[in-house]
Amino acid sequence: MFSFSITARAGRARTGVFTTPHGDLATPVFAPVGTQATVKTLTPAQLAELGASLVLSNTYHLYLRPGEELVREMGGLHEFMQWPGPILTDSGGFQVFSLAETRKIDDDGVTFKSHIDGSTHRFTPEKSIQIQENLGADIIMAFDECSDPNDHAYSQIAMERTHRWAERCLAAKTRDDQALFGILQGGVSPDLRTASAEFIASLPFPGIAIGGLSVGETKAEMHAALDIIEPLLPEDKPRYLMGVGTPEDLVNGVARGVDIFDCVLPTRLARHNAAFSSEGRLNLMNATFASDKRPIDETCDCYTCRTFTRAYIRHLIAAKELLARTLLSIHNLRALIRLMETMRAAIQDGSFESRVPDLLAQWQGNAERSLTTKGTK
Amino acid sequence: MFSFSITARAGRARTGVFTTPHGDLATPVFAPVGTQATVKTLTPAQLAELGASLVLSNTYHLYLRPGEELVREMGGLHEFMQWPGPILTDSGGFQVFSLAETRKIDDDGVTFKSHIDGSTHRFTPEKSIQIQENLGADIIMAFDECSDPNDHAYSQIAMERTHRWAERCLAAKTRDDQALFGILQGGVSPDLRTASAEFIASLPFPGIAIGGLSVGETKAEMHAALDIIEPLLPEDKPRYLMGVGTPEDLVNGVARGVDIFDCVLPTRLARHNAAFSSEGRLNLMNATFASDKRPIDETCDCYTCRTFTRAYIRHLIAAKELLARTLLSIHNLRALIRLMETMRAAIQDGSFESRVPDLLAQWQGNAERSLTTKGTK
Repeated sequence: MFSFSITARAGRARTGVFTTPHGDLATPVFAPVGTQATVKTLTPAQLAELGASLVLSNTYHLYLRPGEELVREMGGLHEFMQWPGPILTDSGGFQVFSLAETRKIDDDGVTFKSHIDGSTHRFTPEKSIQIQENLGADIIMAFDECSDPNDHAYSQIAMERTHRWAERCLAAKTRDDQALFGILQGGVSPDLRTASAEFIASLPFPGIAIGGLSVGETKAEMHAALDIIEPLLPEDKPRYLMGVGTPEDLVNGVARGVDIFDCVLPTRLARHNAAFSSEGRLNLMNATFASDKRPIDETCDCYTCRTFTRAYIRHLIAAKELLARTLLSIHNLRALIRLMETMRAAIQDGSFESRVPDLLAQWQGNAERSLTTKGTK
Repeated sequence: MFSFSITARAGRARTGVFTTPHGDLATPVFAPVGTQATVKTLTPAQLAELGASLVLSNTYHLYLRPGEELVREMGGLHEFMQWPGPILTDSGGFQVFSLAETRKIDDDGVTFKSHIDGSTHRFTPEKSIQIQENLGADIIMAFDECSDPNDHAYSQIAMERTHRWAERCLAAKTRDDQALFGILQGGVSPDLRTASAEFIASLPFPGIAIGGLSVGETKAEMHAALDIIEPLLPEDKPRYLMGVGTPEDLVNGVARGVDIFDCVLPTRLARHNAAFSSEGRLNLMNATFASDKRPIDETCDCYTCRTFTRAYIRHLIAAKELLARTLLSIHNLRALIRLMETMRAAIQDGSFESRVPDLLAQWQGNAERSLTTKGTK
């Protein structure tokens, strides 16, 4: 039901096709995040029009609201949110660990309080799999523990728990129409990253996720970690770099052999009136755009850029009109999806390696970490 | 450049075609309201898909933000908001009179304070026309004064000012690619309504608007006013009932010879999680919908009803996801536009008069005035 075939290579970069029960994914792929079973402000029709293929949704949020039993009763997540293509759910691990003040981790699982009503809940590896089986995504994730990249001792404890939990997730899984990906951890320590990559690669997962990056480490540390991990991973399994990233992160990730990415950045930037562009990140509230007849990005083919001026979008923002968020979300998501399309084509026609410097230069100025790129909203 | 031809009749109801520089309008027609140059939460592509033809925008709001000079510089309202079809702008009259505490009316015009920053501004008939010429809508409105329907003496003063201002608007108009409609007033007093209808009908307007209804009078008073006015209006000019209305108001208005309607109700209801339906008005936040697999309205052909369950929409509302507003706005607007399509077809096939009781019964329970139907948001 699942298979991954590599169709072209360029250095460590590769294109491939990952077959799922809801269609084939051309990789490398960027997945828009639909935390609460909706990619914020967009209809599935708009998502399809901008070229989305894989959509991510969050186990923690859907467990709390509307509840995974309800989603199952409604026919599963595809039917509920009416996304006909592949869906990936995270394990809830990252989300509950983010509740720093209100969660308690032990070797068996995590007890945490709901951010909605403060009620107490508990996730274990088995519970995470059960929830994800009820949600019914095509790709589901092992329950893992993310650690502070600067704390080696804690990173080791978290990594070892993650390894035990990976085995428990494999044992707990019952559905054969879902691909369970393992997650490797290890902070930014080469020894831990090596150990985690080797261990997770040794288990019978059909895909492997790289967790614990884009959580506060430097870009150089992220790249170093990827450089250590990549040679240790099986060639024939898709690699998923969780929660990444900016346009530059995507180029750097693809160049280091990553196949799947997701990030809230495009929709989060939209909420902050910001847009990716080949001129660097733009804040459309800026008064200099008040009578600017150009689209956000003259190189962009999205509905927003084909249709509207910067002046109009600035007016919508100034007038507090929600359409601004929709239009900026369409643009920002399309920008990243188009970048993935460009990279796939370049890998296939042999030009990828020579184009990396240009791609990085083109997207320079979009990568500032002025807004957190991880999280739930 | 403008012409109105009646294509069928059923009692006082009629279908027609009003030709404008941006396309032909099939009447009777319901115009979605795009106060700030956007029908809230919807793209023009979504508006077109749900069958909108005429869109209304507000002179008062656009004058204040982004300013009508900017809109002109951007190529006019059609270009600015990218609505390719006909647009109607109101005169700003109703909006500034609504600023009850901060406006002062004299025979020459109205001085008022901006709701945005408290700054002082002045509208006169000439200023209103100048602003509307800069905005560039196809149909523009004379500057009028709306009065309290229960105050005969004030209604007479307001009516007489409205008549003088109508003449001044005609004199001030310079563009020949805009149709200037006159507005009759007169509260709910038969003598004033008669006088106003006769006076406005005597002026060379290509269309006539009925102002001052749906502002607090009873349904019976609204119908009585329409019954007085209709026989006094020229047959060959479109009649526009401003700020109306509910599904039942539309049926009652069409049956009384009205050709054009607008109302914020569909998008306002969406903001309050409410939907028109053939079962009466529904509040989708209601817990009874939590696992309801039906669409909002099984008789509806809109994108929302073709695609999503009540349960999903309720989840979006509970999770404070903005997509709920988009989906409810699509449904509510489509419901009224579909009702207009149904009435046009019934007038043309001769069944309208016999179907009026059924149409009113079908939409019963959608007309409660639990939410104000007029206003700016």
